Amino acid sequence: MTYEPIDYLPYDFANRRHIGPSPAEMADMFETLGVAGLDALIDETVPKAIRQDFRLDFGKPLSERELLQRMRVVAAQNTVLTSLIGMGYHGTVTPPAIQRNILENPAWYTAYTPYQPEISQGRLEALLNYQTMICDLTGLEVANASLLDEATACAEAMTMAQRVAKSKAKAFFVDENCHPQNIAVVRTRAEPLGIDVHVGNPDEMDASLYFGALFQYPGTHGHLRDFTRQMQALHTVKAVGIVSADPMALCLLKEPAAMGADIAVGNTQRFGVPLGYGGPHAAYMACRDEFKRAMPGRIVGISIDSHGNRAYRLSLQTREQHIRREKATSNVCTAQALLAVMAGFYAVFHGPKGLRAIAQRIHRKTVRLAKGLEAAGFRVEPKHFFDTITVDVGLLQRGVLQAAVQQGINLRRVGRTKVGITLDERTTPEVIEAVWRAFGLVREDKDLTPEYRLPDALIRQSNYLQHDVFHMNRAETEMMRYMRRLADRDLALDRAMIPLGSCTMKLNAAAEMMPISWAEFSQMHPYVPADQARGYRTLIDDLSAKLCTITGYDAFSMQPNSGAQGEYAGLLTIRDWQKARGEGHRDVCLIPVNAHGTNPASAHMVGWEVVAVGCDDHGSIDLADFRAKAEKFSDRLAACMITYPSTHGVFEETVKEVCAITHEHGGQVYIDGANMNAMVGLSRPGDLGGDVSHLNLHKTFCIPHGGGGPGMGPIGVKEHLIPHLPGDPLTAKGPGPVSAAAFGSPSLLPISWAYVLMMGGEGLTQATRVAILNANYIAKRLEGAYEVLYRGATGRVAHECILDTRPFEKSAGVTVEDIAKRLMDCGFHAPTMSWPVAGTLMIEPTESETKAELDRFCDAMLAIREEIRAIEDGRMDHEVNPLKLAPHTMEDLVKDWDRPYTREQGCFPPGAFRVDKYWPPVNRVDNVYGDRHLVCTCPPMSEIAQAAE
Amino acid sequence: MTYEPIDYLPYDFANRRHIGPSPAEMADMFETLGVAGLDALIDETVPKAIRQDFRLDFGKPLSERELLQRMRVVAAQNTVLTSLIGMGYHGTVTPPAIQRNILENPAWYTAYTPYQPEISQGRLEALLNYQTMICDLTGLEVANASLLDEATACAEAMTMAQRVAKSKAKAFFVDENCHPQNIAVVRTRAEPLGIDVHVGNPDEMDASLYFGALFQYPGTHGHLRDFTRQMQALHTVKAVGIVSADPMALCLLKEPAAMGADIAVGNTQRFGVPLGYGGPHAAYMACRDEFKRAMPGRIVGISIDSHGNRAYRLSLQTREQHIRREKATSNVCTAQALLAVMAGFYAVFHGPKGLRAIAQRIHRKTVRLAKGLEAAGFRVEPKHFFDTITVDVGLLQRGVLQAAVQQGINLRRVGRTKVGITLDERTTPEVIEAVWRAFGLVREDKDLTPEYRLPDALIRQSNYLQHDVFHMNRAETEMMRYMRRLADRDLALDRAMIPLGSCTMKLNAAAEMMPISWAEFSQMHPYVPADQARGYRTLIDDLSAKLCTITGYDAFSMQPNSGAQGEYAGLLTIRDWQKARGEGHRDVCLIPVNAHGTNPASAHMVGWEVVAVGCDDHGSIDLADFRAKAEKFSDRLAACMITYPSTHGVFEETVKEVCAITHEHGGQVYIDGANMNAMVGLSRPGDLGGDVSHLNLHKTFCIPHGGGGPGMGPIGVKEHLIPHLPGDPLTAKGPGPVSAAAFGSPSLLPISWAYVLMMGGEGLTQATRVAILNANYIAKRLEGAYEVLYRGATGRVAHECILDTRPFEKSAGVTVEDIAKRLMDCGFHAPTMSWPVAGTLMIEPTESETKAELDRFCDAMLAIREEIRAIEDGRMDHEVNPLKLAPHTMEDLVKDWDRPYTREQGCFPPGAFRVDKYWPPVNRVDNVYGDRHLVCTCPPMSEIAQAAE
Repeated sequence: MTYEPIDYLPYDFANRRHIGPSPAEMADMFETLGVAGLDALIDETVPKAIRQDFRLDFGKPLSERELLQRMRVVAAQNTVLTSLIGMGYHGTVTPPAIQRNILENPAWYTAYTPYQPEISQGRLEALLNYQTMICDLTGLEVANASLLDEATACAEAMTMAQRVAKSKAKAFFVDENCHPQNIAVVRTRAEPLGIDVHVGNPDEMDASLYFGALFQYPGTHGHLRDFTRQMQALHTVKAVGIVSADPMALCLLKEPAAMGADIAVGNTQRFGVPLGYGGPHAAYMACRDEFKRAMPGRIVGISIDSHGNRAYRLSLQTREQHIRREKATSNVCTAQALLAVMAGFYAVFHGPKGLRAIAQRIHRKTVRLAKGLEAAGFRVEPKHFFDTITVDVGLLQRGVLQAAVQQGINLRRVGRTKVGITLDERTTPEVIEAVWRAFGLVREDKDLTPEYRLPDALIRQSNYLQHDVFHMNRAETEMMRYMRRLADRDLALDRAMIPLGSCTMKLNAAAEMMPISWAEFSQMHPYVPADQARGYRTLIDDLSAKLCTITGYDAFSMQPNSGAQGEYAGLLTIRDWQKARGEGHRDVCLIPVNAHGTNPASAHMVGWEVVAVGCDDHGSIDLADFRAKAEKFSDRLAACMITYPSTHGVFEETVKEVCAITHEHGGQVYIDGANMNAMVGLSRPGDLGGDVSHLNLHKTFCIPHGGGGPGMGPIGVKEHLIPHLPGDPLTAKGPGPVSAAAFGSPSLLPISWAYVLMMGGEGLTQATRVAILNANYIAKRLEGAYEVLYRGATGRVAHECILDTRPFEKSAGVTVEDIAKRLMDCGFHAPTMSWPVAGTLMIEPTESETKAELDRFCDAMLAIREEIRAIEDGRMDHEVNPLKLAPHTMEDLVKDWDRPYTREQGCFPPGAFRVDKYWPPVNRVDNVYGDRHLVCTCPPMSEIAQAAE
Repeated sequence: MTYEPIDYLPYDFANRRHIGPSPAEMADMFETLGVAGLDALIDETVPKAIRQDFRLDFGKPLSERELLQRMRVVAAQNTVLTSLIGMGYHGTVTPPAIQRNILENPAWYTAYTPYQPEISQGRLEALLNYQTMICDLTGLEVANASLLDEATACAEAMTMAQRVAKSKAKAFFVDENCHPQNIAVVRTRAEPLGIDVHVGNPDEMDASLYFGALFQYPGTHGHLRDFTRQMQALHTVKAVGIVSADPMALCLLKEPAAMGADIAVGNTQRFGVPLGYGGPHAAYMACRDEFKRAMPGRIVGISIDSHGNRAYRLSLQTREQHIRREKATSNVCTAQALLAVMAGFYAVFHGPKGLRAIAQRIHRKTVRLAKGLEAAGFRVEPKHFFDTITVDVGLLQRGVLQAAVQQGINLRRVGRTKVGITLDERTTPEVIEAVWRAFGLVREDKDLTPEYRLPDALIRQSNYLQHDVFHMNRAETEMMRYMRRLADRDLALDRAMIPLGSCTMKLNAAAEMMPISWAEFSQMHPYVPADQARGYRTLIDDLSAKLCTITGYDAFSMQPNSGAQGEYAGLLTIRDWQKARGEGHRDVCLIPVNAHGTNPASAHMVGWEVVAVGCDDHGSIDLADFRAKAEKFSDRLAACMITYPSTHGVFEETVKEVCAITHEHGGQVYIDGANMNAMVGLSRPGDLGGDVSHLNLHKTFCIPHGGGGPGMGPIGVKEHLIPHLPGDPLTAKGPGPVSAAAFGSPSLLPISWAYVLMMGGEGLTQATRVAILNANYIAKRLEGAYEVLYRGATGRVAHECILDTRPFEKSAGVTVEDIAKRLMDCGFHAPTMSWPVAGTLMIEPTESETKAELDRFCDAMLAIREEIRAIEDGRMDHEVNPLKLAPHTMEDLVKDWDRPYTREQGCFPPGAFRVDKYWPPVNRVDNVYGDRHLVCTCPPMSEIAQAAE
């Protein structure tokens, strides 16, 4: 008898976890492509000159079980205490139904940003609920669908204020009561833009000096102040007033709009989103209606579909490709969608009465805590507070803090003699008693007489959350079904390939996702003492080391919590280095015209001038133009920003030359890591000449897109840049921080680490190779039907390919949008539309997709081509055809049908599943209508009905 | 300013978790019902005479967060070691994708048993995969969809053998190498049926003495024996041969069918299902084709729908109402569907090559372990083995076992001098080395030369798992999408009410489900020393105490792992008590004609004669008849079995009298707890006169139905019966055990405990009251349209109501099935059909449903009544109408439509969601065809196509 060889791994399915095509499928694909195998294909595709000369080797890859065991060990190195540190981060209770049905449900976490509204109605509704909540709590008219964190939201508010203020002042006032990380990030952002930041006492502010001012409410040490007078003063000089407000406090306190605020920002973390050692959480931003078009980020709005039915969509889109390259002063193109959805559902679960009661209980507990301390003679500040008090303990500070830790509690060190305490909805009487013990007091928390320390003038007078959705029946059965209904309206990775070019929508494996729910990772405050976060340190250090090996850089900063944030952080790093070597005047950044839209925006944010460089017919950088511009701006050249492989999906042979030219002229090279999934194990940006790159961990390294965020954009740098990386947000040591938390959104990092550990060096490289195989297979199968723009020298594409659909507009009146919408009928999310070339589709299949799924997609694309041909040939009407009327809904099917094609043809084109057909819940959404009639909160149904008429 | 009163609970949504109607909705419902409030309704509904005179009080109910904290504390009291005890339970690796997408996904775990095939195609396909796997591994032609555990499967196989054997022998042979719990449960089952069980050496078996024989393969101490000779001997005398086989071993070893076995049973736990301290797991049973109609349990088969398309369904249904009351010798009506689905997916994930490799690795590890021991001079038995060895250590036994525990490992104590060791797929070299250390050996597990100790004659010669589904592309992306597609085909509680009478399909709250995934509960072997399971003990003791308070009993046994198993265990207990008091001859059981079908079956299983008692026009027990029968059989009366409130949904006023009569004549009262959801907090079976009851924890106490199992049916008894409860399966002390594990399926118990802790006494009582309110509301709203059969004296129903749909057969040719299928078009699972009264619908809404959902259901039912009226009035065709053609599929919609009603009428009747419409994936399934052409494994598609012609 024979046995399989000893080296056959039964957990092959596990090693194959991320690799879509089976060995048999790959063999077929090689035949289609006419190559001998994967090695040969890669040799044809990736130029020798840029190949790395060693194999990635991270030791034996871990099985899923070994990974989870390793994670448990590392998790145990974190010590989870009760953190009463406050500073915008609070203990919260995530309703288990939200945890299970949203956070841990692939239907929610694997979804993409809802740019294609017809297949995103579920999360768009959830985000509209969130926006409505923000508008109601702040009292302002318009809210966006979230920003990265409170500190960056403050900085975004500052630059937005500068955009909208009619005041010509150049300085910006910051309340000294702001959280220190907010001040630090505002300073970072202001400096390159030439904005003077004055930090001071709001009561002493001279409004005439400022185009805007930022106030914290409640203040970082607990103070409650009415900013009405400050707002009036600012408005008198046509400056803009911003309040960064705790949304929980707003459930009891006068809302920013009632004080006259123009913009409000803050963190919704305490609405059911775990602390996660700093993130991810959804920061919010709201503003007056008149400023809405200046607001960064995404706004969900209501429009109508082609049948006049209500439909949600992203309004006033500011996605990277929509960012006006030349004028942008914000590069925001990530929201924290998944976390905003959770925070919105937290409000739906609790309703206004519940939220108010939670806020009351937090406040009453704080009053009880304060009374206990006062009774023992401690001096508690301020007189009025919501959830935060500060106690002057003189020489006892260290003793109290240490005693608290012994009691399992982290308090805040304030100055040299004070201790800050912030309570939250998790605080129990036992915790209050433990705090007292840390102050040397033995007493019981028994006096439950309600008592309030809110100033009468700041008691909230207005209602909030009046809309039906916040008054749902809150039986869990109904909540669960509502979450399921919304999830079912959307098309996410758990049902079909999402072939978005440059977005790398790959598998987010279950084993990788599990640890993020563990308390050891999720329940840590970002500002705990380092010795409590040893597990995180282990994880971050090891992941950084491996990312260095992968990229050829010498160090990584995990601080940027989005790709665009990474770009910005990278450019800041370069800028700081240039300054340090006495070249601070350098302010020109060369950027090819096909760059990501965020690139120029990021360069503007560091105060640089963007000089565009042309591309040749192959989509590659025009080397002559590049050289000419570099020479022209030789004295001023700060950096160039390139993407590799190019955004046209090509491995440019000239990349090293581009880098050399840049260096020659004193510039630094920023290589955008968006396309890293085409490089891991094959080529390293650090070897090509890059000085800095960001990695989109939510692309290449398996962090899910979450329906439009979270993201992570850590940056890798060469050794000389290490001292210039973003500094700590709290200590203000070193260069300015770009995020509120030192490690960005660290609770996501276990995902990427798990991916790397389970793939090993060989697996990671195989993923890259198969990503390239899959892209080339699609390009090959679609050959003849569509023209593939931009190929490499040997006729191969990299990990994505661009299809030219522009000819069909002339030949058949069919636009790229028609094709994108028609793909929905086939059960697919459209590829990237009109970027980087207008009128084209960019397809990136990733390594996760099987040949069967690629074939389903190709079948759909080929059938669409035939439908176009029928129009070209006059066999199908120019206006009434399956493309123009796509997507088709169940409603179309059930209604009378007077079209020149059958229901079958309309609804079940090739590619579409039969039994498992996905139905878009709405017909094609009217974008123009939506932007003209901007409605960004949940309206009563009656209004919608009228609007549609 | 004012605040909400201090006692408003912000976590009201949590307290309201299980209570569907909001306070406002309830007020509306009271108006509809014409009652002043809930108290008044309950007073009208539940007779004073049977009400309990105290309020349930379990202290302050816990919030979700408090519950999870409490669970963590209790979980920490369990000590999870690596158990190498074997005995049919093994460490296993649950693929995270299966854990997340099946076990933790409400779409799978909240589903009901797939009796309505059109809305159950997903789990039917998953179960068919499981059956195919079992048939392939055992080599037998037909497998069922799982049984409760291996020991009961052995017992079921014995009684099945008796049914099918042509031998008239009365004895049954049991291999002495069987696991002790299998022998114990077989003995329990055999004794009341008058079957002599002989336990002995298979080589010395005299086949002529037996109607059947059971062998263990591999033997409990590791022996591998070819039973071909025994099978031949049995067949010679027309007896039946049964093999209980480890499915993992069958991946390498000669399959039972190749030895000539007629029936195979075993446990699929080690196919990815966590140990759970004993359960739940799916036991399997397979048999020769000729015996299939005698097989207990459910069998999934393939049939066609009304359009001739392939459709799955349950074949040869043996559900409780289908059990032939008079002849049944099995009462099985629960499968372990969720666990069978997991085991089936484990095979789909790994495929035959992966399973074989896993089995090989387990074997090789065992060889290495043995070699190490042998090298040190230990005597290892047997010569050939798969994964289990036994070592004679003489006086060292205690020392080795203790040393192993110190190393974190449980070994098996065998006799007085031996130690048993069983390895599994989780065993690492570190574990092997630790075992060696426990034997005093310091060596490394380094020698990876493959070596086998399998006897050549037992090497498997046949292939298995050749069907496509086991050769899927095993990239996780594809697996995840396959699981999602199957889930989406089904209608479970996460999308709609499932108003099944007597099945109590209530919310399974997320917080209640979370702890069952924790390692402290899921990774415990059932036979660990008691001091390692202190957490379980705490939980079980506290839950038992609370159930005693709720029911009025004095003790609970958690051993029965289904409701029917509970009935059987309860009757055994009574029987043992009767014997003990010298009344062992009593063998008559009075059972009303409207009892659950399992009641008579259970009575038969303990060897009793069932005497049926009639019912009056109100569905209540005919007291005169009861008295007469009790008197007639006074000397023989062992027990009566009644259900309260009755299966007709009525609180009978005479229940106490029935109990008194029974006691008067020396009988014991068994009160079936299926309807306990109408009693908790209001009335206690123990107070009514009951001596024993089982509780369906998967009904009243929130354990999910899992798509047809698991279940839990613990029994409560009065004090005098306590010594007669089922004994321990291992020690064989006390009365015989009914399950393989002492506490049945203990890893489910955290769910029920969580429910009780979070509801508190008041919450539990409120659930009961609202369940009654909801049922009465439905009865009221449907009044006039449908006749409600059986009401109490005041015209109210209990927690369910029966609608008489029989008149429509005459008036319009519409059957109860037509109505049930039409409800699918409305997005509902049908109520219980034709039970307890043929031609009727029994509706139980439970307390979890909101008024809005009840209204949606009533709207659907009223619209259906109007559709019937249209036929009655001649406005609609008798044959071609929406009822007869229900359910409607997407295919109907897309095809030509030549029906006398519109697509809109057909597909979107009142109740149906519009955007969120649920589509049954198949049209009405042909039951007759399916039973006539029984196909119970995955066939090639070509065969199906032919069959359909």
